[in-house]
Amino acid sequence: MFNQLGVIGCGLMGGSFALALKKAGLVKRVVGYSKSPSTTETAKKLGVIDIAAESALLAVSGSDIVLLAVPVAATEATLKAVKHMVDPGVLFMDVGSTKCDVVEAARRVLGKQFGSFVPAHPIAGKESAGVQNADAGLYQGRQVILTPLPQTNAALVQKATDVWSALGCQVLKMTPQNHDAAFAAVSHLPHLLAYAYFSAVAKQPAGRDYLSLAGPGFRDFTRIAASDPAIWRDILLANKAEVMAQSKRFRDMLDLLEQVMQNDDAQGLETLLRQASEGRSQWQMGVPRTRN
Amino acid sequence: MFNQLGVIGCGLMGGSFALALKKAGLVKRVVGYSKSPSTTETAKKLGVIDIAAESALLAVSGSDIVLLAVPVAATEATLKAVKHMVDPGVLFMDVGSTKCDVVEAARRVLGKQFGSFVPAHPIAGKESAGVQNADAGLYQGRQVILTPLPQTNAALVQKATDVWSALGCQVLKMTPQNHDAAFAAVSHLPHLLAYAYFSAVAKQPAGRDYLSLAGPGFRDFTRIAASDPAIWRDILLANKAEVMAQSKRFRDMLDLLEQVMQNDDAQGLETLLRQASEGRSQWQMGVPRTRN
Repeated sequence: MFNQLGVIGCGLMGGSFALALKKAGLVKRVVGYSKSPSTTETAKKLGVIDIAAESALLAVSGSDIVLLAVPVAATEATLKAVKHMVDPGVLFMDVGSTKCDVVEAARRVLGKQFGSFVPAHPIAGKESAGVQNADAGLYQGRQVILTPLPQTNAALVQKATDVWSALGCQVLKMTPQNHDAAFAAVSHLPHLLAYAYFSAVAKQPAGRDYLSLAGPGFRDFTRIAASDPAIWRDILLANKAEVMAQSKRFRDMLDLLEQVMQNDDAQGLETLLRQASEGRSQWQMGVPRTRN
Repeated sequence: MFNQLGVIGCGLMGGSFALALKKAGLVKRVVGYSKSPSTTETAKKLGVIDIAAESALLAVSGSDIVLLAVPVAATEATLKAVKHMVDPGVLFMDVGSTKCDVVEAARRVLGKQFGSFVPAHPIAGKESAGVQNADAGLYQGRQVILTPLPQTNAALVQKATDVWSALGCQVLKMTPQNHDAAFAAVSHLPHLLAYAYFSAVAKQPAGRDYLSLAGPGFRDFTRIAASDPAIWRDILLANKAEVMAQSKRFRDMLDLLEQVMQNDDAQGLETLLRQASEGRSQWQMGVPRTRN
């Protein structure tokens, strides 16, 4: 049980965390700050936060748990603004989709207090961003990756594990490097592909007509192309090398499929499609809906 | 109202059409044939068809409406097997996802009876194929594209329009060429990309670990990679030129995005992502759920 949660960035992720902690009875009071005053105001009106802070520093002040939920490229500047209030014993987490860059920013900025920072990535979200879409159930049944370092305070890592588990999450630990390699493959690249694909269709001369004919397959394939462009700008740049490496693998496989098509090799094409189809049919999303 | 529906190919599409026609009270009796006797048998056991025919010809015999629901590459051979029973006045349709190749096969095989064939493509389906997944509601609220030619019997085109409309579909007419160009963009290419992407992830050394971390974005993006490989082998080969042309547009857009990433051009990247995001947020699937 925490006395006060400080949320920096009252968007979908930060707002949903505040609602989830309140719903689980894990926090007495939520203080929130967003760069845009109207967002902070909306968060207060919606009951996502109890008190609107006028600065990130004031959101940290007096909090025993702090969640940093800003686009990953804003991590360093935000940490600089609050570093004087990061006390040992306060659980300080982020929710960024990339971890190497966030960890490096925290290491640079926090100095001796680096051990209080527990890097976290909950595998949750939706394409409709903003505090108005905050949802107490967003994290329920999802995986959360923690990427602590040897210097990270072990008691705080345990506390982080307990908090996310209490929200119904399965908590895994990985190195920042392994995290970023894995999520380049299963999350960052598909976002890039979905953005590229949607634009390629939409920008062609008959694009509007074509889009009016698209069905449920298209709908699901392109859902993530509606994701927040500022968030994804930062993720794609922060994890550029790994995303490019995954894109290369994807392009090689697309080349192979097209080569087989060009050769009218029906058997070869079917074999390749069948491998994907069987693999995808057997795949299940990682987490059983466990409640702790 | 029809006396007898003949279904050639009692899979997801053919079986769902039989169930939908029965449910709408539009047919007295359904005769079905599949290449695999066990499929025909299952269709009968499940009540999808009333009578199991021992050949495609016997499924056509005595039918006043016939649906050809086989992989598109099997169209020509199937038409050859039944052409002697294609009488003027019998509504003969297919459900293929490509139309130029199907129309050409029908033109070659049917000769004078070509006018009885009304090429149709209902924009419906699911990744779980087979008669056991047949569903009377599969076509409800979906678009159906008819690609009649000048020689096609106008009364039969009207009859086809009436049947699909009665199943709750919105019926559109296009040329086979326009159809194939449009569906290369909004359906065939995304299937190819989803297959390529899933295999690229799965086949890398850490692929299994990565897949265990994938979340809801991945789930939706790759859903169509579970589609039937034999069906999609045929579609991709039949519409190869248009699919390749769309793939080129996609690759150009992916190149552009990656170039902007390589240049660390955050503003340029955000602008490109925002165009896709706004376009996709505004897009809605074509058909309001109208019932006629």
